[in-house]
Amino acid sequence: VAVITLTTDFGLYDSFVGAMKGVILSRCPGTQIVDLCHEVPPQQIRIGALRLAAAARYFPAATVHVAVVDPGVGSERRALAIEVGGQFFVGPDNGVLTLAAEPGTAGFRAVSIENTALLLTPISQTFHGRDVFAPAAAFLARGGPLQDLGPQVRSIVELRLPTVYRESTRLMGTVIDVDRFGNLITNVRQADVAAQAVEAVGIAGERIAPLSHWYDPGRKLVALFNSDGWLEVAAPAGSAAQVVGVGLDASVEVELRSDRSIA
Amino acid sequence: VAVITLTTDFGLYDSFVGAMKGVILSRCPGTQIVDLCHEVPPQQIRIGALRLAAAARYFPAATVHVAVVDPGVGSERRALAIEVGGQFFVGPDNGVLTLAAEPGTAGFRAVSIENTALLLTPISQTFHGRDVFAPAAAFLARGGPLQDLGPQVRSIVELRLPTVYRESTRLMGTVIDVDRFGNLITNVRQADVAAQAVEAVGIAGERIAPLSHWYDPGRKLVALFNSDGWLEVAAPAGSAAQVVGVGLDASVEVELRSDRSIA
Amino acid sequence: VAVITLTTDFGLYDSFVGAMKGVILSRCPGTQIVDLCHEVPPQQIRIGALRLAAAARYFPAATVHVAVVDPGVGSERRALAIEVGGQFFVGPDNGVLTLAAEPGTAGFRAVSIENTALLLTPISQTFHGRDVFAPAAAFLARGGPLQDLGPQVRSIVELRLPTVYRESTRLMGTVIDVDRFGNLITNVRQADVAAQAVEAVGIAGERIAPLSHWYDPGRKLVALFNSDGWLEVAAPAGSAAQVVGVGLDASVEVELRSDRSIA
Repeated sequence: VAVITLTTDFGLYDSFVGAMKGVILSRCPGTQIVDLCHEVPPQQIRIGALRLAAAARYFPAATVHVAVVDPGVGSERRALAIEVGGQFFVGPDNGVLTLAAEPGTAGFRAVSIENTALLLTPISQTFHGRDVFAPAAAFLARGGPLQDLGPQVRSIVELRLPTVYRESTRLMGTVIDVDRFGNLITNVRQADVAAQAVEAVGIAGERIAPLSHWYDPGRKLVALFNSDGWLEVAAPAGSAAQVVGVGLDASVEVELRSDRSIA
Repeated sequence: VAVITLTTDFGLYDSFVGAMKGVILSRCPGTQIVDLCHEVPPQQIRIGALRLAAAARYFPAATVHVAVVDPGVGSERRALAIEVGGQFFVGPDNGVLTLAAEPGTAGFRAVSIENTALLLTPISQTFHGRDVFAPAAAFLARGGPLQDLGPQVRSIVELRLPTVYRESTRLMGTVIDVDRFGNLITNVRQADVAAQAVEAVGIAGERIAPLSHWYDPGRKLVALFNSDGWLEVAAPAGSAAQVVGVGLDASVEVELRSDRSIA
Repeated sequence: VAVITLTTDFGLYDSFVGAMKGVILSRCPGTQIVDLCHEVPPQQIRIGALRLAAAARYFPAATVHVAVVDPGVGSERRALAIEVGGQFFVGPDNGVLTLAAEPGTAGFRAVSIENTALLLTPISQTFHGRDVFAPAAAFLARGGPLQDLGPQVRSIVELRLPTVYRESTRLMGTVIDVDRFGNLITNVRQADVAAQAVEAVGIAGERIAPLSHWYDPGRKLVALFNSDGWLEVAAPAGSAAQVVGVGLDASVEVELRSDRSIA
């Protein structure tokens, strides 16, 4: 059974997602359609890219992932279809695909979707989710070859997360996501810390130490590496965003122990 | 694979939609169930009708569309099953189906669902989505004949959208929908303008000219015919509803050029 | 076709549900995944238990129901898989499963999920939905035997709803749920009233009489036994929670007629 996942900023209030599903099922009957996330805030490409990257790796080979966060719809931005790691990725050329489908990965191939014979006619200038990306995904789900969608492209727009800065025994990071529980997710990865032990995590005047391994209800705030490998600040009894009083783009500081030791 | 779509005002907070899905899968195993929209505001039949009409056309032949926005549940209002255009439509007789399944269309057939042997027993007086519409849809998805559900009906309740008024070179329309992006969707269709060119669109003191073809980020407000053919006012960088300060039922005025020309 | 339902407090804003679906489809391709409810308020086990119990009974035999409302994730609480009534239930041992899968029911069997060879490796300490419950459910959906997941357990944590108190001709109950329409759902069941007739229902100073059978638009407030058999207070034209001004945990009083009569 072919699988197509959908990640959009369309929300669930309107008919946008429903129309995309209709196109997919008309062109590839029996496809299993999986809603990854439709609550990406309007036009926030980075949140869309994070949602897709967090879930895509758990899907089977040959899954087609569609991501539509597309402020440039109707402009000259390209429409992309990518094959990498045995899966497919379809969406606008604005970076929304590139945390999951990283250019430079072995076997990465991208084409610009231009073969209008495979798309809806006429193509509207405001809803490429329905008219371009859904039919392109259905074509791939049916086993159609990537290169039939359009010419190969050499370079695509890449999304860059903010950089983690290092100063001897400190890492300076940023909150890049706030989840439904109010957990503050930062751009500091377990790999950034490597074998060094974390002494404490500082955010908005709060100093959290030591690192936790779970949402310990005995503590007001915990800092831990979450199930995706990101450093996260959480308030086990509620919302860290509310307790700490900060959100997206807030600074976070990680104190490392100067001596090497296994965390 | 049989396909059943669901459009309701049940929201996703409760178990209403889940119970409907259970009934469908118990009575027609393997059905592909597609959520079209469950965030229709409580009892707003017109929004439900618009959601269904916008998406239904993209689904394959034989799809069964269920729409439950049903303030009259438990009263004498009929339960309908309709066949038209190769698809099926199931829901209360209050107009919610009739923008998608238009009476008068060639081949239109409607029956009143009264064959309780095909429904849940006992039928509750408050949840026909689960007890009447889901089992009727499952029956049709299994290939059951429409007429087995109940007697044919000659006339049903039709939903009428507000009328567009024309005065020589002006059209007077109404905002009939506001989407999640705050776009203001009016009842003026591309066909209302026909070959005449639109000079400008006026709404709440704003005059928008000329018409756009996309969400041009260089403009505060744009007016365009959207991907469903409705005239829409949008604020590319945010919400037109907020920028203009109006919402549902607001008046809109379309100035047409007096000389005939291709738009 | 195997069916797995999902009930969580993960919401739809993040990637949690998407990651679970990926794991399920990787381990049991073709499974039909049904979202029962993801809007359980964070960590409200009772609401999760009510959602699951209201919908599970309508699903076909062999359905696997997964419920993840799990404030104790990462602690010593057990992970359970239960077989009862021809269906399966998977989730934390905190009561979230026990309104649907009642201990003491004939044929009830529960195991503690401990066979890590069947789960994701490594198991995170914060996301057992993805790493433990999804793979355990996929194993059952493939037809794997319950006992392979881990050792049988004799006693599990049971959720108790508040008790209904009886004083000769009065029942004292509690609001245990407020649905999206603002209907106030109480813990008084039709069976509590039995053959006695209800004289009136009192809540927050309002006295509602007689009982209704539907959402009668001619009345400001109605009291009725809803489609799941619970006593419910509703405002047909709006939200009873707003009209009455109370919510979860509010007291409700049912006056019974002293003479026996069929309601």
